[in-house]
Amino acid sequence: MDKAQNNESQKEIDEIDHLLNSLFPITRSLTGDGNRETLRILQEIAPLIVSEYPCGSVVYDWVIPPEWRVRDAYIKNVSGERIIDFKKSNLHVVGYSTPVDVQLDFASLRPHLHTIEAEEDVIPYRTSYYKRDWGFCVTRLQYEELEKSEGVLSVKIDSDLDNQGSMTVAELRVPGETEEEYLVSTYLCHPSMANDNLSGLLVTAFLARDILRVGRPKKTWRFVFVPETIGAVAYLHKNEIEMMKLAGGLVITTCGGPGPMGYKETFLGNHTMDRAIRLAFKEALIDPLRYPFVPDGSDERQYSSPGFRIPVATITKDKYYEYPEYHTSSDNLDFVSGSEIAKSLSLYRRVLEILDSNQIFRSTQPFCEPQLGKRGLYPNVGGGINQVGSRPIPDVDTLMWILFLADGTHDLISIADKSGLEFTEIDFVARRLRGAGLLDRCDPPSTL
Amino acid sequence: MDKAQNNESQKEIDEIDHLLNSLFPITRSLTGDGNRETLRILQEIAPLIVSEYPCGSVVYDWVIPPEWRVRDAYIKNVSGERIIDFKKSNLHVVGYSTPVDVQLDFASLRPHLHTIEAEEDVIPYRTSYYKRDWGFCVTRLQYEELEKSEGVLSVKIDSDLDNQGSMTVAELRVPGETEEEYLVSTYLCHPSMANDNLSGLLVTAFLARDILRVGRPKKTWRFVFVPETIGAVAYLHKNEIEMMKLAGGLVITTCGGPGPMGYKETFLGNHTMDRAIRLAFKEALIDPLRYPFVPDGSDERQYSSPGFRIPVATITKDKYYEYPEYHTSSDNLDFVSGSEIAKSLSLYRRVLEILDSNQIFRSTQPFCEPQLGKRGLYPNVGGGINQVGSRPIPDVDTLMWILFLADGTHDLISIADKSGLEFTEIDFVARRLRGAGLLDRCDPPSTL
Amino acid sequence: MDKAQNNESQKEIDEIDHLLNSLFPITRSLTGDGNRETLRILQEIAPLIVSEYPCGSVVYDWVIPPEWRVRDAYIKNVSGERIIDFKKSNLHVVGYSTPVDVQLDFASLRPHLHTIEAEEDVIPYRTSYYKRDWGFCVTRLQYEELEKSEGVLSVKIDSDLDNQGSMTVAELRVPGETEEEYLVSTYLCHPSMANDNLSGLLVTAFLARDILRVGRPKKTWRFVFVPETIGAVAYLHKNEIEMMKLAGGLVITTCGGPGPMGYKETFLGNHTMDRAIRLAFKEALIDPLRYPFVPDGSDERQYSSPGFRIPVATITKDKYYEYPEYHTSSDNLDFVSGSEIAKSLSLYRRVLEILDSNQIFRSTQPFCEPQLGKRGLYPNVGGGINQVGSRPIPDVDTLMWILFLADGTHDLISIADKSGLEFTEIDFVARRLRGAGLLDRCDPPSTL
Repeated sequence: MDKAQNNESQKEIDEIDHLLNSLFPITRSLTGDGNRETLRILQEIAPLIVSEYPCGSVVYDWVIPPEWRVRDAYIKNVSGERIIDFKKSNLHVVGYSTPVDVQLDFASLRPHLHTIEAEEDVIPYRTSYYKRDWGFCVTRLQYEELEKSEGVLSVKIDSDLDNQGSMTVAELRVPGETEEEYLVSTYLCHPSMANDNLSGLLVTAFLARDILRVGRPKKTWRFVFVPETIGAVAYLHKNEIEMMKLAGGLVITTCGGPGPMGYKETFLGNHTMDRAIRLAFKEALIDPLRYPFVPDGSDERQYSSPGFRIPVATITKDKYYEYPEYHTSSDNLDFVSGSEIAKSLSLYRRVLEILDSNQIFRSTQPFCEPQLGKRGLYPNVGGGINQVGSRPIPDVDTLMWILFLADGTHDLISIADKSGLEFTEIDFVARRLRGAGLLDRCDPPSTL
Repeated sequence: MDKAQNNESQKEIDEIDHLLNSLFPITRSLTGDGNRETLRILQEIAPLIVSEYPCGSVVYDWVIPPEWRVRDAYIKNVSGERIIDFKKSNLHVVGYSTPVDVQLDFASLRPHLHTIEAEEDVIPYRTSYYKRDWGFCVTRLQYEELEKSEGVLSVKIDSDLDNQGSMTVAELRVPGETEEEYLVSTYLCHPSMANDNLSGLLVTAFLARDILRVGRPKKTWRFVFVPETIGAVAYLHKNEIEMMKLAGGLVITTCGGPGPMGYKETFLGNHTMDRAIRLAFKEALIDPLRYPFVPDGSDERQYSSPGFRIPVATITKDKYYEYPEYHTSSDNLDFVSGSEIAKSLSLYRRVLEILDSNQIFRSTQPFCEPQLGKRGLYPNVGGGINQVGSRPIPDVDTLMWILFLADGTHDLISIADKSGLEFTEIDFVARRLRGAGLLDRCDPPSTL
Repeated sequence: MDKAQNNESQKEIDEIDHLLNSLFPITRSLTGDGNRETLRILQEIAPLIVSEYPCGSVVYDWVIPPEWRVRDAYIKNVSGERIIDFKKSNLHVVGYSTPVDVQLDFASLRPHLHTIEAEEDVIPYRTSYYKRDWGFCVTRLQYEELEKSEGVLSVKIDSDLDNQGSMTVAELRVPGETEEEYLVSTYLCHPSMANDNLSGLLVTAFLARDILRVGRPKKTWRFVFVPETIGAVAYLHKNEIEMMKLAGGLVITTCGGPGPMGYKETFLGNHTMDRAIRLAFKEALIDPLRYPFVPDGSDERQYSSPGFRIPVATITKDKYYEYPEYHTSSDNLDFVSGSEIAKSLSLYRRVLEILDSNQIFRSTQPFCEPQLGKRGLYPNVGGGINQVGSRPIPDVDTLMWILFLADGTHDLISIADKSGLEFTEIDFVARRLRGAGLLDRCDPPSTL
């Protein structure tokens, strides 16, 4: 990397760090103003279109829940001291807690408390979206303090659940030269946690900005920011016909930790999406942790469900479930950094480049090889080879592989796989051959 | 295993041992009263339907041979002493020997004698079904005694071959909820040998009783008891149209020895039958000897022939060809026991259970996941997982796998294979989901 | 090998050695009298049909170049001494050099010189077919001598490029019992080099003689001798419809060196051609170097191009590109010998035998096994096996495998692969079964 590139990279890392600091404290959930505020900040990166889906709407087997607002929450001891204070961490309140304002002794409070036995200073993350309930998440030390406190505790959650409200989603669809369309989806429902899923929100927004910067991409790209599960379900419901046609997708999550990179395969295991991801990792000389498809995880559960079957993969850096800080207050800005997120972003970027460049060609001269020499594509003095024991000069090799496989069934990724040559070189030479009239593109219908 | 189960098992072993003792001495062959007597005893286990196929019938390329009866046979020395006596072992007479009553010297008798050089006290088992001939099978010591005996030998076989007779077969067809039908076939033509094939006769009869005990099975089951080769050929000829529709089958043979269990694959190698057998062995933590399909062996040669192509497998315990006692008088009740047969029976039972439970489902909610929480199928407090580094609680995992693969192309066995979860749990949870209206069965036509 | 066979083999080796000596000195190129003379000698082996294709003809993307004749060429120093003399090696002149007759100093000559830095006494092989140019190929010592020579050098190439001439190709098509047709192609454009490709010319001619000697083969065989690339292109152009129907092919090249045998796969990797070659190597207990298909090499590039897609393989002994003598004057009769060529010939012969014998059969008795005993194809005394722990006697085994797989989808090679039995035995037994009326051939349309 030269110095200019290095400066560029550092600038991007600084930008990510700055955004992490702005976004981290916001109280996000399935619904609410925190989500709106989060999307407003992301709109500074890319021009996302924000929509509101009315609460109470039936979306397949689900109903969009009421909009949840929480203004304050605490547990005070007899001295009026806030032992637990929502203002210090929004993780203290179980997501979607109903309003409460009572005086209780510890025994009555206990069923409403969530803590992690093994850690003295860590707050767990809990929600109760579909069963009306309330609760507090507390560290073990706080739990012990509450347990020891004599007399009644004042418990208050100043929240409401508004059936007239709405759920906020954002999207950006960038039409390409063809209708072949890929999904890049992430979720925005998690409050103050950094890897799950601020990292995903930022990477997705940066990728959207990238695609816009290249002008008109070759493929159509759809970027989606939704609350997990209910948001994806509602989005699929609203866009059912279009979504059934998607070629493949990515769900971006937990990609900013200090650990090794991982890759969860699509349910097909060898879809174009998988082949593009493997190629990107191979080029980057990274051997990721491999996670075969299982029907848990994130919104691939919806996108790949039997009715849609969009092949969706995920690249991670400290994958959900796999790091001890997962779904706790330790998943914070000490754990995640701009420089780690930049590593995932770089990998995802390459995947998008490969997918966008990927094409199927058909030779215009399928009977025998075209004569490359008369087109200036072949060395004019025959008989020589670069060195004994090897194949002819790489350039000719690339030409030959592309022309041989240009039968309308091989895409550029498969030519890279079969030949072992660089995708970028194949892409470049294929364009040169097309320019020379030797290849036709076999494209899906144009969007023009 | 608790005590009640233990008692139950011991009772079954005792029952098998008792039947072994009753059945072992009977003179079975392709035809004859020994076969009828054998089937009469097996009818005490399960209500087999017995049929007689007339001798002389043309069945494909074959003709059912005359009915063979043998009452007595011996070789006497000049002193009138029976050196060889059919009454001591029915293996002494070559199967289907023509009647003979002659005085011979040893040299003339010699071409009619069969023995095993390497063993001094073992009688081989030989037949001559389709070439009219007679002969005696003797131990090496007996052979040597005959060789040394001076003067003429009185040789008698009191047998006849009756063209007006018939060949006896038995069957039991248990119609299930669907027309998907499986074959369980065994052969009854072997005289006093225990592993080949008393073990097969008993296991098949017990499996028939099992299926009847469950009431109406889900699949249709066809149990067949025939003399090997000619019996299977005749049975297929008589039931040609029905047999061409069969989904798969088992040929049960040599499953009562003290050696390790084995499994001969179907000619397809990965048929539902193979997958069910592998699952059953995996559950039992047994790694069987694997025998890839070869076109020798038993009646799979007929059932899987090009015109029928029923995928047929076999589970063995001391497989034919592979144990030194095979086709000799040493394959007796010292070699085989009720407790060894019970081990094979247990494995076969599980295979039948798996096949009978196996189903293909289709989700009634193919677009996105159904909301499990409102149906009491999902933990209501979200965000938590059982332990870091693992996937969510098993119950949800099972639900997710089933719903994800419920697309009308995956059977329960393949869901078990893909998920690594227990078949029994998958079967149980799939029923629960069907009860909740979330799955439809994709069945072959009903038999109702 | 007995003595008669041994003599026969030695006679063939001597014949090859004699032909190598006759053919080696001839100046071959894309066109010209050297090619005609070469084919005339090969016609002594097999009755090849020689054709002339007019120069200037458009064949797909190519134009047949003018006929090149070269009578003499030299570089003389000021003393009139021939430093470089075409009469000593025809490799000295760059193929297709235009005529030249000039006086030059070394600096002006230098761009027209080709040498190999690393070797002092080796002439490289170079051509300039499609760009009008001239040049000399010289050893490093010669290069140094020219460099040191004072004063002007007399440079002469007495050649001409005749647009009225023609390109010479030869072929021999031997119609078989069926239209299933295989290609055996080699190239004749290389001047005095022995492995590349005198070895290929001789092996191909001997194979053609073999096929004629068996009388009417079962398959149709097409032997083709063309200049590389342009010859194959022109031949395909002229025979387009027929060539699109070909079942498979061989390109024979570089098969006479002292090194190990190699095998370049067809682009399919598991075509009948590949299976036949693997079987032949397995029978010969040779484990060849394996070269997966790559679209470089020889005329498979044309035959397997998208419009034709004939699966073509190559067996080599010191494969092109892989030996240091490749495309130099060291690829001579010290490197190649009749005895090495005979080893490749033997392997190729077996491949042709296997392909010619290979057939698909269908049982005339698909329902159950036919009764082999009544046809004298089965041991009449049943119950015995050859030895404990093994399968029945091989003869029966072979019968059973063939009858089991005679379903119209398995060829004899696949029966050999699945059963592990010898192809020759399978072929023999299949004929016996066909003679007994138990098998029908499933042949492509007859040529009769």
